[in-house]
Amino acid sequence: MKQDPLHIGIIGAGRIGRVHAESIAFRLPQARAVAITDANRASAEEVAALYGIPTVAASSAELLANPEIDAVLVCSSTDTHAQLIVDAALAGKHIFCEKPIALELNEIDRALGAVEKAGVKLQIGFNRRFDANFARVHAAVANGEIGTPSLMHIISRDPAPPPIEYVKVSGGMFRDMTIHDFDMARFLIGDEVESIYAAGSVRVDPAIGEAGDIDTALLVLHFRNGVIGTIDNSRKAVYGYDQRVEVLGSAGKISAENCYPNQAVVSSATNVYRDLPLNFFMDRYAASFTNELGSFVQAIRDDTPTTVNGLDGRMPVVMAMAARLSLAERRPVALREVAAV
Amino acid sequence: MKQDPLHIGIIGAGRIGRVHAESIAFRLPQARAVAITDANRASAEEVAALYGIPTVAASSAELLANPEIDAVLVCSSTDTHAQLIVDAALAGKHIFCEKPIALELNEIDRALGAVEKAGVKLQIGFNRRFDANFARVHAAVANGEIGTPSLMHIISRDPAPPPIEYVKVSGGMFRDMTIHDFDMARFLIGDEVESIYAAGSVRVDPAIGEAGDIDTALLVLHFRNGVIGTIDNSRKAVYGYDQRVEVLGSAGKISAENCYPNQAVVSSATNVYRDLPLNFFMDRYAASFTNELGSFVQAIRDDTPTTVNGLDGRMPVVMAMAARLSLAERRPVALREVAAV
Amino acid sequence: MKQDPLHIGIIGAGRIGRVHAESIAFRLPQARAVAITDANRASAEEVAALYGIPTVAASSAELLANPEIDAVLVCSSTDTHAQLIVDAALAGKHIFCEKPIALELNEIDRALGAVEKAGVKLQIGFNRRFDANFARVHAAVANGEIGTPSLMHIISRDPAPPPIEYVKVSGGMFRDMTIHDFDMARFLIGDEVESIYAAGSVRVDPAIGEAGDIDTALLVLHFRNGVIGTIDNSRKAVYGYDQRVEVLGSAGKISAENCYPNQAVVSSATNVYRDLPLNFFMDRYAASFTNELGSFVQAIRDDTPTTVNGLDGRMPVVMAMAARLSLAERRPVALREVAAV
Amino acid sequence: MKQDPLHIGIIGAGRIGRVHAESIAFRLPQARAVAITDANRASAEEVAALYGIPTVAASSAELLANPEIDAVLVCSSTDTHAQLIVDAALAGKHIFCEKPIALELNEIDRALGAVEKAGVKLQIGFNRRFDANFARVHAAVANGEIGTPSLMHIISRDPAPPPIEYVKVSGGMFRDMTIHDFDMARFLIGDEVESIYAAGSVRVDPAIGEAGDIDTALLVLHFRNGVIGTIDNSRKAVYGYDQRVEVLGSAGKISAENCYPNQAVVSSATNVYRDLPLNFFMDRYAASFTNELGSFVQAIRDDTPTTVNGLDGRMPVVMAMAARLSLAERRPVALREVAAV
Repeated sequence: MKQDPLHIGIIGAGRIGRVHAESIAFRLPQARAVAITDANRASAEEVAALYGIPTVAASSAELLANPEIDAVLVCSSTDTHAQLIVDAALAGKHIFCEKPIALELNEIDRALGAVEKAGVKLQIGFNRRFDANFARVHAAVANGEIGTPSLMHIISRDPAPPPIEYVKVSGGMFRDMTIHDFDMARFLIGDEVESIYAAGSVRVDPAIGEAGDIDTALLVLHFRNGVIGTIDNSRKAVYGYDQRVEVLGSAGKISAENCYPNQAVVSSATNVYRDLPLNFFMDRYAASFTNELGSFVQAIRDDTPTTVNGLDGRMPVVMAMAARLSLAERRPVALREVAAV
Repeated sequence: MKQDPLHIGIIGAGRIGRVHAESIAFRLPQARAVAITDANRASAEEVAALYGIPTVAASSAELLANPEIDAVLVCSSTDTHAQLIVDAALAGKHIFCEKPIALELNEIDRALGAVEKAGVKLQIGFNRRFDANFARVHAAVANGEIGTPSLMHIISRDPAPPPIEYVKVSGGMFRDMTIHDFDMARFLIGDEVESIYAAGSVRVDPAIGEAGDIDTALLVLHFRNGVIGTIDNSRKAVYGYDQRVEVLGSAGKISAENCYPNQAVVSSATNVYRDLPLNFFMDRYAASFTNELGSFVQAIRDDTPTTVNGLDGRMPVVMAMAARLSLAERRPVALREVAAV
Repeated sequence: MKQDPLHIGIIGAGRIGRVHAESIAFRLPQARAVAITDANRASAEEVAALYGIPTVAASSAELLANPEIDAVLVCSSTDTHAQLIVDAALAGKHIFCEKPIALELNEIDRALGAVEKAGVKLQIGFNRRFDANFARVHAAVANGEIGTPSLMHIISRDPAPPPIEYVKVSGGMFRDMTIHDFDMARFLIGDEVESIYAAGSVRVDPAIGEAGDIDTALLVLHFRNGVIGTIDNSRKAVYGYDQRVEVLGSAGKISAENCYPNQAVVSSATNVYRDLPLNFFMDRYAASFTNELGSFVQAIRDDTPTTVNGLDGRMPVVMAMAARLSLAERRPVALREVAAV
Repeated sequence: MKQDPLHIGIIGAGRIGRVHAESIAFRLPQARAVAITDANRASAEEVAALYGIPTVAASSAELLANPEIDAVLVCSSTDTHAQLIVDAALAGKHIFCEKPIALELNEIDRALGAVEKAGVKLQIGFNRRFDANFARVHAAVANGEIGTPSLMHIISRDPAPPPIEYVKVSGGMFRDMTIHDFDMARFLIGDEVESIYAAGSVRVDPAIGEAGDIDTALLVLHFRNGVIGTIDNSRKAVYGYDQRVEVLGSAGKISAENCYPNQAVVSSATNVYRDLPLNFFMDRYAASFTNELGSFVQAIRDDTPTTVNGLDGRMPVVMAMAARLSLAERRPVALREVAAV
């Protein structure tokens, strides 16, 4: 039963790279980070020192050439993901890659082709699947607890919009923010979406509109199995991070509410109140980041398929493309209109 | 301050006619039912006996000819509403009419024309506006408590579908069931809808599909003021009557949950549970039926506009028409495509 | 099945007399108030006019002499209850009497003796038993849903203390306020209390202490069957009327929470809040007042025992006596120390 | 700012010793476990291997003699705590000691004397103070959010009783289980208790009664500042680990509810349910164990008083003694009757 820990190399020492380094150092005894690299070497060195990673590689190429490394975490900027997947696959490393694989489909398909050819494992960083709330909803649908599903709702609102400079290079709200919800929709219903109707507007900040994006959206998803669902997105919910889902089925419904920092409720002379829900995605989804890495490590050790595979990385990008076209043309758009699916 | 009670005549002694008769008899001292009529005389006699209504009129014509009567409640079948409004207006009676005024717009417009010409008051029976929960949400939007609204959701599911014979003559789900939600949307946001995208399917009972109708729907409403909203309808929620709304604004959100027969929660060895929500619209909306009549009576006494006027009766029918066209053509439909608005 | 309505006479046209008059007039078609009397005749006349009561009697004696009357409601001041019960019993009327029967046991026993001798029915106005929440908890205990009970809690706090003049003549907090909770404890557990330990203090208003009373109390009830329970009383909860209970049993627990005027929740930039719970006992317990009268009327019609009988009226007074002694002597007091039980 | 991690020695490799070893290894970078010892050497070796602790000491004496060690965690069996505190104090080590310090007061006083003489820091393992829920309630009382407190409730029920062999040597329910609640009461109200009235019974398992203990208790605490509080204890709540508190003050109340593994709620055809609350104290209080150690480490680094000091370790034991005497003599017992306070 006892095995040596899996040796992991981390490419990218930014915010999410640090989260994974911390998970490995403090919460995943079955894995060990043996090397890290970042375009900004100082950043890589800081993370290495913080979490006891023995080697700081000069480049991803140097890291991938390290024969000690079993698997890599691709945590660098989005525009480097696809090529790094190709490189890592060629080097025979298993790959955990943050979402999205790429903003353009041909890039994604090139990366997935390399993975398939190399026969390595690939897991995409849709961490929310590993959140206890959404996992519970998924289970209720999958095990028939609510019968055959018919309607689904996802509410996914951020506490505040990102800096406008980020908005400009984000690829648009659908590819940057809704992408998590596209994955959630497929995960909860266990089926593919056939077409999407997207409505969107600028309600939070005119500067976002001037940058050519929207900050508020409502999407209707038509699933192949007949389920109809909605996604509600806003770049700004003043009360915090709002992450809820609901599925109605023939035998009942299941709803997952927000998470709070405590369960204390005050009854005052004015009203009955509680503290705001968890406000930061790192807090709200803390356990999910560890769980997704644990699942990746386990899939490698057991040689089983990863829980979030290449197709799971590709479909949300296709859905974002369909949503964008729908918004532009004000009509429902079939996924097959924008890509081979 | 003390006034004689308003004298009311009731046309139609079916389910909703009885509800109003009971409200007047037991909960509205400022009004008195002085006459009732029904195509089925026995039914009218039964209600008259039950609630102490002194006169059973042989026909609506006879009832309307009664000079003692100040106002009438039109509670007969939908196909009679428009003509009865015309007749009552000609007779100079104030009119409370159950929804919908008619299934066809020209009928509605004829009725509203007669009302305007006669200068009588007209109130439409959208009772849900008078429910404490929705009234509270309306107030939060209207008084700025949640800032400028941007997204809205209405969930409105029945515990069980009506008999298939009723489905066949109902005018379709949008005009029969969603009509309440169309009104709710306008009420909550305080603005008109510009266009509607409707998705629908048959998930509850194939017989409903064979009758040419749907039993499950998801609609996107584009309001003139930029708010985007959804309506979620199902003919069957096994857990009861599901009636919830939510509005997101720039300063917060407000959500109204379902109502339960009691506040008791049991923690067992298996799970933590409570009894099902109120299952019957008569229980769920009991107070609202009394409140709407009270509001109607008050408007007459104070000579102020009614709270749910002719336009409020007309717009939901237009919205249902747009929704039906959207469903057929799988595209968003502007209200002005289907009617002068 | 159809019966003539029960003819009721109302003695006392104060606040609670009006509540019952309204219930009979508007919500209990199976009963009719045929006469009312009050020491203040104008008050009786006002209520008679409001609710269509045909006769205003000059005195309780005149009312009791009316052969048309089947049953009387004793709603006059507490000090008159016992004698009126005796008088009504002698007159052969069934009796509904507000709590408490009397502040002194010998008075209570005299009244109960007269009732027994006359063979009339007596129901005491412990209306809270008829509240949907407490009825649900009672049912869960009685039907074994939570197994064998072991611990019980009653929280019962008023929104604000009564006027100090009332406090002075109230008989003390235990007999005036806790009395409802003593009844609730017996009702929920379905067993008698053997001894009581009472702690109390003045936390709300020093004037209450100067008047020789307490405004804050915590009592421990030792039931014969081994259940231990607490009662938490405060004359002032700034957030409203706080009425909760909980019972722990071998198979689970059941808790009843407060009732709110609506189910709307606002998430703001500061916190998540809802409106205060129902603040007035007339609102909180509105349905229970009608239900208890309905139950009384039904017991007479069906000739079955009333649901809250003379013993149920006597025991809470004994419990209040024991609590008072416990508070004075700072020790648990057995009920048999203060009365034959 | 950067400091070397604090060097910690762990005495006792049982369940709680492992929890602390894991916290230090994975969640407290500012501390490092450098040695561990246990009467069962194999157990110490296992924990050392698991969490990378370099040294397994043959005895506590050997561990305390290690000059590298700054502080020790006393996680051995209760009967060894007091002597180990004395030994550690003599060795000049700061001490974190699991509760209780000892079952007998003279032992506690001897230990506290040694600590005072040595001038080392001592923190007692009342971890619940570091739980987010209770910390929030504490803050609301301390900062005046609910005004001046008057009533307090603690509900503290275990999912299942410990093995009967453990019950026999536990020192009784009050010293084994209620001790946490005695600390919680002092923590929440910020004042000392003057006297205690304890009621108790055997409701869960007759074997517990045969072993001379109780399994169900209700205590009334009279605080010096006039607050009255209750503690509700049961050795068995079939629905899980029940840990709630409530404080009523002049400006409102604050209540802390249980914690759940997820926020998903299912509405079925039968009822509305959610999964059971967290069932195991290690899950329910996971964060609190890390937080208390972090607080201890910080107090040493900043040379500030520890948050749970020797007095905080002593008073709950005195309270347990008073409760035991109260139960035996069926009367409230002042703390000064059983110990110098």
